[in-house]
Amino acid sequence: MGCTTHPPGPGPAALCCQSPLTPPVLPQMVVWDEEQFQGRRQEFTADCYDIEACGFPAIRSFKVESGAWAGYEHAAFQGQQFVLERGEYPHWEAWSGSNAYHVERMGSFRPIACSHRDSKMTIYESENFLGWKGELSDDYPSLPAMGWSSSTVGSFRVHSGAWVCCQFPGYRGSQYIVECDRHTGEYKRCLEWGSHAQTSQVQSIRRVQQ
Amino acid sequence: MGCTTHPPGPGPAALCCQSPLTPPVLPQMVVWDEEQFQGRRQEFTADCYDIEACGFPAIRSFKVESGAWAGYEHAAFQGQQFVLERGEYPHWEAWSGSNAYHVERMGSFRPIACSHRDSKMTIYESENFLGWKGELSDDYPSLPAMGWSSSTVGSFRVHSGAWVCCQFPGYRGSQYIVECDRHTGEYKRCLEWGSHAQTSQVQSIRRVQQ
Repeated sequence: MGCTTHPPGPGPAALCCQSPLTPPVLPQMVVWDEEQFQGRRQEFTADCYDIEACGFPAIRSFKVESGAWAGYEHAAFQGQQFVLERGEYPHWEAWSGSNAYHVERMGSFRPIACSHRDSKMTIYESENFLGWKGELSDDYPSLPAMGWSSSTVGSFRVHSGAWVCCQFPGYRGSQYIVECDRHTGEYKRCLEWGSHAQTSQVQSIRRVQQ
Repeated sequence: MGCTTHPPGPGPAALCCQSPLTPPVLPQMVVWDEEQFQGRRQEFTADCYDIEACGFPAIRSFKVESGAWAGYEHAAFQGQQFVLERGEYPHWEAWSGSNAYHVERMGSFRPIACSHRDSKMTIYESENFLGWKGELSDDYPSLPAMGWSSSTVGSFRVHSGAWVCCQFPGYRGSQYIVECDRHTGEYKRCLEWGSHAQTSQVQSIRRVQQ
């Protein structure tokens, strides 16, 4: 988004302050136990390993105030994954994506370290970094449109940044978050990029936005 | 996606052939009346105004072979919109997105003319191109993360290309396709960017990928 010529204030003009030199953002997320940001409220600035242990039977809405977060269906960062970037999520449809089964709960979440501007990853046709490969440094709403001839990816090697890999084109379907500072950035087979992953079908990939 | 050093063949190497000089793609979409690409099959290379008039009671799966398409819930390009880029859509969850109500049908669809590389759009805080504005020329999974201080957009002016505007961050929720060669690229209020649009909530925007 380009800077406008408006005087400082709300809106995109604030973007003028954003550059690779900006110090790391302190992540902040606010959750509620009812939809539409109602009911009990709690702020988080670090990992939540088990939301029930925080006295929340469920999270029904939240706002990501800063940073980027990974949300998980179950406690202990297990189950379906959801990348959560800045913005408002007033009900479960806002974060659950178009999964074949709809996840109406989020059991745990954690901040993601990412460097949007210089993210790099290599994708491979087969497990264990074998077969055709592609070098990624941008966002790809359709891998086939960019020349990837398969609807699956066998393995990922993340050189920098954090990425979200999606089952269907247009960033739909199950999401898998892969990061350079986890698994030493190496995801050799689909079970390594998600405890719930039962398919290596990946048709869109993008950088996580902080 | 960068070119690999592999010899010509399937996979990203094909990307080497893609450039702004590539002639326009002939759009092609193949639909089936059962999930998982089963049952009756039909190919399309142009607008389908009413799939029932083509003898299909419903579309339950499809593949976008080339180009980018706009799908609609109802005939006559009405109702919920879905941007459909190259890839495989084996069942309705693959295209319906995480709408508050789930659209299990697609009644009409048409190719989208887009120029991914030089797409430009201006978004405005208020209707009729008033208030704070932001100049867009990239993909924005979170407008708030890029400095846009509101969870809504009042109006759009599309200078080039085609864009998909999404209700929630990460390209989730209801989608609205806005194009430079429709409405003369001017969308003054939310009813102009979707017959079904009841909210101006827009938290992520990206270029449509051909």
